Amino acid sequence: MSSRRQLRLGAFMRPVSIHTGAWRYPGAFPDANFNFAHYKRFIQTLERGRFDAFFMADHLALLNMPVEALKRSHTVSSFDPLTLLPALAAVTEHIGLIATASTTYNEPYHIARKFASLDHISGGRAGWNLVTTSNPDAAKNFGHDEHMPHGERYQRAREFFDVVTGLWDGWADDALIRDAGSGIYFDPDRVHVLDHKGPEFSVRGPLNVARPVQGWPVIVQAGASEAGRQIAAETAEAVFASQATLAEGKAFYADIKGRMARLGRDPDHLKILPGAFVVVGDTVAEARAKRAHLDSLVHYDSAIASLSIALGTDASRFDPDSPLPPIPDTNQSKSGRERTIALAEREGLTVRQLAQRLGGYGGLAMVGTPATIADEMEQWLVEGGSDGFNVMFPWLPGGLDDFVDQVVPELQRRGIFRREYEGRTLRENLGLPRPKSRFFPAG
Amino acid sequence: MSSRRQLRLGAFMRPVSIHTGAWRYPGAFPDANFNFAHYKRFIQTLERGRFDAFFMADHLALLNMPVEALKRSHTVSSFDPLTLLPALAAVTEHIGLIATASTTYNEPYHIARKFASLDHISGGRAGWNLVTTSNPDAAKNFGHDEHMPHGERYQRAREFFDVVTGLWDGWADDALIRDAGSGIYFDPDRVHVLDHKGPEFSVRGPLNVARPVQGWPVIVQAGASEAGRQIAAETAEAVFASQATLAEGKAFYADIKGRMARLGRDPDHLKILPGAFVVVGDTVAEARAKRAHLDSLVHYDSAIASLSIALGTDASRFDPDSPLPPIPDTNQSKSGRERTIALAEREGLTVRQLAQRLGGYGGLAMVGTPATIADEMEQWLVEGGSDGFNVMFPWLPGGLDDFVDQVVPELQRRGIFRREYEGRTLRENLGLPRPKSRFFPAG
Repeated sequence: MSSRRQLRLGAFMRPVSIHTGAWRYPGAFPDANFNFAHYKRFIQTLERGRFDAFFMADHLALLNMPVEALKRSHTVSSFDPLTLLPALAAVTEHIGLIATASTTYNEPYHIARKFASLDHISGGRAGWNLVTTSNPDAAKNFGHDEHMPHGERYQRAREFFDVVTGLWDGWADDALIRDAGSGIYFDPDRVHVLDHKGPEFSVRGPLNVARPVQGWPVIVQAGASEAGRQIAAETAEAVFASQATLAEGKAFYADIKGRMARLGRDPDHLKILPGAFVVVGDTVAEARAKRAHLDSLVHYDSAIASLSIALGTDASRFDPDSPLPPIPDTNQSKSGRERTIALAEREGLTVRQLAQRLGGYGGLAMVGTPATIADEMEQWLVEGGSDGFNVMFPWLPGGLDDFVDQVVPELQRRGIFRREYEGRTLRENLGLPRPKSRFFPAG
Repeated sequence: MSSRRQLRLGAFMRPVSIHTGAWRYPGAFPDANFNFAHYKRFIQTLERGRFDAFFMADHLALLNMPVEALKRSHTVSSFDPLTLLPALAAVTEHIGLIATASTTYNEPYHIARKFASLDHISGGRAGWNLVTTSNPDAAKNFGHDEHMPHGERYQRAREFFDVVTGLWDGWADDALIRDAGSGIYFDPDRVHVLDHKGPEFSVRGPLNVARPVQGWPVIVQAGASEAGRQIAAETAEAVFASQATLAEGKAFYADIKGRMARLGRDPDHLKILPGAFVVVGDTVAEARAKRAHLDSLVHYDSAIASLSIALGTDASRFDPDSPLPPIPDTNQSKSGRERTIALAEREGLTVRQLAQRLGGYGGLAMVGTPATIADEMEQWLVEGGSDGFNVMFPWLPGGLDDFVDQVVPELQRRGIFRREYEGRTLRENLGLPRPKSRFFPAG
């Protein structure tokens, strides 16, 4: 075991790939998001690559995009994460299983029970990506005409978290005696009735599942707003970050870890893992060509909308096959516009290529050889930009296989990524402490 | 394949065994309800025994019993069925997976999505035991001070069913084109927006999961009230029945199938499967001795409450080790009282033994050799008492292994139970038609 700081790697699966052209890439599985056998292959490869976790995104509606874009995207639909991950638990032994579950349109008793069940079934490998749902189409699937306002969503999320963790804490770790001789199955004095009554929820408890193997499944969050950062610093153990550059990443990292220190939390007890879209080639040029081909599979009608948003102007009036014309200032996101213009100039992209880049994946990307990708990851780790990454694969299975077969060995050779799992649970592998029950702190 | 009528067999798992003494039986797994490895063993044995389905009961609270009884019962807690069954799907190939899910404290969009996901993940083996929740303690876990009245629960259940099946029907079977050449993933004209607005639910849709493999997962119900029988005749494809005698079973069978005929449904399209508690021995006397030993493991304090309810009088004042004294008439359930008195006389049970029998399991039981058990099952099948059974095992793993290793071969030898699965899906194995989408009836 190396004494160097260790990378943590999650595999971020947003219906298979975040890239809307992924299903059309040569050799890709077009039906991967609805084919359990494919998911099984992916996760078993990730486990061979010693990934910390398989991280499943979620939406509670068809994605909120125009039908012309939607009908071209495999991200239109996906299994419920809390139904998929138990099945993947049964075909793996070590890798963590992080499911996204919304606090906006769920009941805390159900969520507490499902994650406790997953944690038992997987032997302590569950993680909960606690999100609020901001897709306005989701509201309409749950009896609401209007989407819940941002502030109310966060207030509800915070109380939801308190109820769920309170239910998990309601059984002492040793409450289940199972003494066949005396006939006592559990000790009623080691079970706490939560009796929560708050502005959003009234939940009596106790939960009808024993305390999770990990005490609590690992708490993951992704909020980037002021409220989201604060709730993360207070409660999260891993954060899915979305900064696109190392400078932004370092600022975010310092902000969150600083908040933790001020709250009296050990900054090591939260892992910051930016999403990173990784394309591997034998040469940097080959990797870039792969990405360019992938981007070219994004339909122009879908792509141009992303470019228009980034530029703050209607890009559909530009000649697709010419360089980007001069863009006037608007009152929309200046940094986004400048970054987009700089990207077009740096890589010499036409309007079409630029649009397809943004329509595919516009965030942090590492496109190169195993060595250049490892260089970038190491730099983020060493310079305080992150504790690791949520890797996003450009297409499946090829992009995932390339990462595990080529990048992982390079990271291992440098001594910054495990060769074997350190522990039995996700919490142990991430180096996170096991929470004590608030009601039974002695154990 | 035999031309004789075929038995359908479900394995009814109410945290492992319905019998509250099961966990104390010699050789039983005391932690079976929280040990995934044990569940895996059980279901793989059932699949070897060609069972139609693994049927998981559920409660949304600790069971509503006095703590003195509760603390002695392994039924206190169990995995969420919709988290357990996907994991079991991944370790089996043929057996059906029926999960109980309440319409009282759930949202139809979630339930539609979870069962659709389970159906895809299992290759078409999902079933939904649609129940209303009548445990008053459950209400308090979901923000309600009072339990929902019976009539309202059934009205909500019926609308819930309409919404869930409407969401399943919202994608035509051929909506997902996945044409990599043209870049079209799905045909928007083959997706229906449900836009349901009813007294209980407002759900827009469409679901973000493709139509289930089976069209709909198999619909299972257990209601025995007038409202429950009618909703079953209208919508169910399997019924968990609870009649304790063949005469009662025949009356129930005729009632449900008669209602179906009057509704224009083919009576073969609903399978009536009473719960049957089966104890196997080399001789009838040995099987009875096993049961008596099992019953003796039920604590008297828990048992006496069941006897008091059955007799309509406080049985704790009787001498436990004497025969039942004469019981005066009360205005409580006369048939239950008479059946209990007759049972005590027929088997010569003391008050303690009688109480422990009822506290263990008081319903339909088949206690004998493989031949006598097969005789009973065949009689129910031939005389129109049932289409099969939901078998309840007295303890695990022994009681389950005995059934699969000894009773199943006897049923197969008689030509009334399959030697190999007939189809790929639960629906095909049960001989049920695949529903057409109401919105895309041509396919």
